[in-house]
Amino acid sequence: MKHPIPTRIYITQEEMPEYWYDLRAEMKEKPDPILHPGTLQPVMAADMEPVFCKESVKQELDSTTRLVPIPEGILDFYRAYRPSALIRAFYLEKELGTPAEIYYKFEGINTSGSHKLNSAGPQAFYAKEEGLECLSTETGAGQWGTAMAMACGFFGLGLTVYMVKVSSEQKPYRKAVMETYGAKVIPSPSNTTEAGQKILKENPDTGGSLGCAISEAVETAVKTSKCRYVLGSVLDHVLLHQSVIGMEARTALDKYGIKPDIIIGCAGGGSNFGGLIAPFMGEKIAEKSSTRFIAVEPASCPSFTRGRYVYDFGDTAKMTPLMRMQTLGNGFIPSSSHAGGLRYHGMSPVLSKLYHDGYLEARSETQTGIFDAAVRFMKSEGILPAPESSHAIKAAIDEALECKRSGEKKVILFCLSGTGYFDLSAYMSYNAKTLTDEIPTDEELEQGFASIPDIPQNR
Amino acid sequence: MKHPIPTRIYITQEEMPEYWYDLRAEMKEKPDPILHPGTLQPVMAADMEPVFCKESVKQELDSTTRLVPIPEGILDFYRAYRPSALIRAFYLEKELGTPAEIYYKFEGINTSGSHKLNSAGPQAFYAKEEGLECLSTETGAGQWGTAMAMACGFFGLGLTVYMVKVSSEQKPYRKAVMETYGAKVIPSPSNTTEAGQKILKENPDTGGSLGCAISEAVETAVKTSKCRYVLGSVLDHVLLHQSVIGMEARTALDKYGIKPDIIIGCAGGGSNFGGLIAPFMGEKIAEKSSTRFIAVEPASCPSFTRGRYVYDFGDTAKMTPLMRMQTLGNGFIPSSSHAGGLRYHGMSPVLSKLYHDGYLEARSETQTGIFDAAVRFMKSEGILPAPESSHAIKAAIDEALECKRSGEKKVILFCLSGTGYFDLSAYMSYNAKTLTDEIPTDEELEQGFASIPDIPQNR
Repeated sequence: MKHPIPTRIYITQEEMPEYWYDLRAEMKEKPDPILHPGTLQPVMAADMEPVFCKESVKQELDSTTRLVPIPEGILDFYRAYRPSALIRAFYLEKELGTPAEIYYKFEGINTSGSHKLNSAGPQAFYAKEEGLECLSTETGAGQWGTAMAMACGFFGLGLTVYMVKVSSEQKPYRKAVMETYGAKVIPSPSNTTEAGQKILKENPDTGGSLGCAISEAVETAVKTSKCRYVLGSVLDHVLLHQSVIGMEARTALDKYGIKPDIIIGCAGGGSNFGGLIAPFMGEKIAEKSSTRFIAVEPASCPSFTRGRYVYDFGDTAKMTPLMRMQTLGNGFIPSSSHAGGLRYHGMSPVLSKLYHDGYLEARSETQTGIFDAAVRFMKSEGILPAPESSHAIKAAIDEALECKRSGEKKVILFCLSGTGYFDLSAYMSYNAKTLTDEIPTDEELEQGFASIPDIPQNR
Repeated sequence: MKHPIPTRIYITQEEMPEYWYDLRAEMKEKPDPILHPGTLQPVMAADMEPVFCKESVKQELDSTTRLVPIPEGILDFYRAYRPSALIRAFYLEKELGTPAEIYYKFEGINTSGSHKLNSAGPQAFYAKEEGLECLSTETGAGQWGTAMAMACGFFGLGLTVYMVKVSSEQKPYRKAVMETYGAKVIPSPSNTTEAGQKILKENPDTGGSLGCAISEAVETAVKTSKCRYVLGSVLDHVLLHQSVIGMEARTALDKYGIKPDIIIGCAGGGSNFGGLIAPFMGEKIAEKSSTRFIAVEPASCPSFTRGRYVYDFGDTAKMTPLMRMQTLGNGFIPSSSHAGGLRYHGMSPVLSKLYHDGYLEARSETQTGIFDAAVRFMKSEGILPAPESSHAIKAAIDEALECKRSGEKKVILFCLSGTGYFDLSAYMSYNAKTLTDEIPTDEELEQGFASIPDIPQNR
């Protein structure tokens, strides 16, 4: 049958948003300020500029402007792969037999395979404008590293990527793509930095962690001339760039007068979820909607559902400023059996604050459960999802099945943040039924919490 | 700068074509008929129906209807991933410094990663309508097998895929995807068929070939109850289904009043190129345009540029009917160093006839040359192309550079038939500079030609 609305709702390039949406400007209570780890006072731009690009620091520290104009050079970059499609999941709905309407914003149609390009482009653009020559960063599953490699290739910048060792072993092809774009890829922990050497000395067999790769990348940035560090999640300026997802989604939904009842996203550091919800959460805060928001995280790295809302370092070597966020402790390292990304110990301070204040819900899922959902989705919708994104799929399916039970015709929107072309070894394990679910024990979590700094704000 | 037209030109789902375009209906001289190998008389439907679905046979043998209505069940399948984007290559144009306008139709946005789904869907749909329970097929690089696995999953049919052994070794993840969709994947030649056993006996170390995998798949189809064989290229009904590419492309171009001067596609069996050119070639035959058409093939399997226009079998075991086509001989096996697909000994009879009659040009390219073009493309356009599709990219770049020399502002359209996510091992070889170019010697070609049947029409 012919559907009343298209399966794929594209906005035109003329309709693409020319503004990012800064959710902080709408928040009644702001996230707590980032603190200097020495003075425990709010950081100033001068504290952060040795590490980050100036414009990123400015965006990080200025939370007053709700609609931030996107520079033309970045719009030009976005036009290389955007707008992304908003897809009505008619085939999945039919398979589930649900009265719910399911929509997903598909951010995987670019070679990085994910939404990460939405912030990689701006950060490379600003670095180039500032006269920098190279950047350094870390990557877990590889989506962010690939996106940065593409963006640095596009704007003509050098790039060093510290890739979490266990991921680099699971995903040799990720490395190939980054190198094809001209990036230098180093498995982390490595001997190229003091932070890496220290970690290797303490734990020679470690598979690495994002927190540890961040330490190495930051150290490299501050020690290299005309080089800065870039981060693909967690920070407020990253969520600002990712709001292009939500702005496009809202434009597409508005065309058909659709109002989502439930908005879902996977959450590791929070970038795709924070980006998707930005304008919709703004409406909720302004009491113009009663939309529910659900963040979905892996049971193996549950910073929302089992973490603490305290000040913590962003990295293992305790080099970054302190952020108040949901955290498992900077020393927490998820089980190496965990297949996908979403393995960061902390969470976006903005999302953490919203969670703390009751604006959003969170749940955790096991990886066998999310692969069940992934395969169900790929068979009906024809798209191979990333394991990360499949956390959102799992929750969307569960909510749609709840509608089937209750008979309610809710509108569900989720972010399909990436594709799984680089995750086939995990799918092979799933097919072979060798994937396991390792959920940290309370004792393991306590070990992670022990790494949280003991400062007055945390008591 | 803001571009005068969008980078991505999407037609809406309401604008999607509801007809396929049968180029044969426009041709002044038709392709020669398919012959029964025993009688050497034109085949009848009854000869083909033990092997193929009835509707495919009907479409294969009826060439009189220019616009063939697409059944609603297939339109519904198409709406799961179509329309595909027509992209203006502004970034590549800028990098080349060419006055040419380059457009490409991007068929890789689905999990099969290629245009192959455009015929896999219809063939599975017709099989289901006919009451069949399973299908068998072959795959080389894996695009067709993946597409059939998706289509059979969608319509609820069993599927056995014979995968050319050398490809199955190069691409373990292809197998994983097909299996996740429920297909049975067997490296070919195998011991599961008489054809495979015979080939293994003669040449135990062979890496296989498409011709040989076809023999195994056909044998399996005819020996299995309620099972038929499906083919992803070469045959007229496949090109008919693929004309959805050209029909969509023309709709999108017409929106902006754009007329292509040069249309380019890679050609192995001819499915994406034949599909793209269909309506445009119809106009040329009707003398309403003077568009140039360029088919690009690998130098390691040059059926257009070094083949013969004679009757030949479609498979190595000489089980299929005879088709008059550009062929290297059914016994020709391309070098195993050849990384991508496009390794079939023959070529679409329709395209072969058009080539023979001077309506289209052909050229061959070495794989190191096409990977150079692929990397240049992916760095500027941000899409990781399949090696197959990169043949078209190479020719598009060469034509655009020719425009730069001559100062002409030509409009170039090519088909980006697929993505390269399953070809990363070839990219790794390219990065490591270990890719080689093996071009068959005249003696090697003569060995292939010796397998062409010695029948009156070939003298």
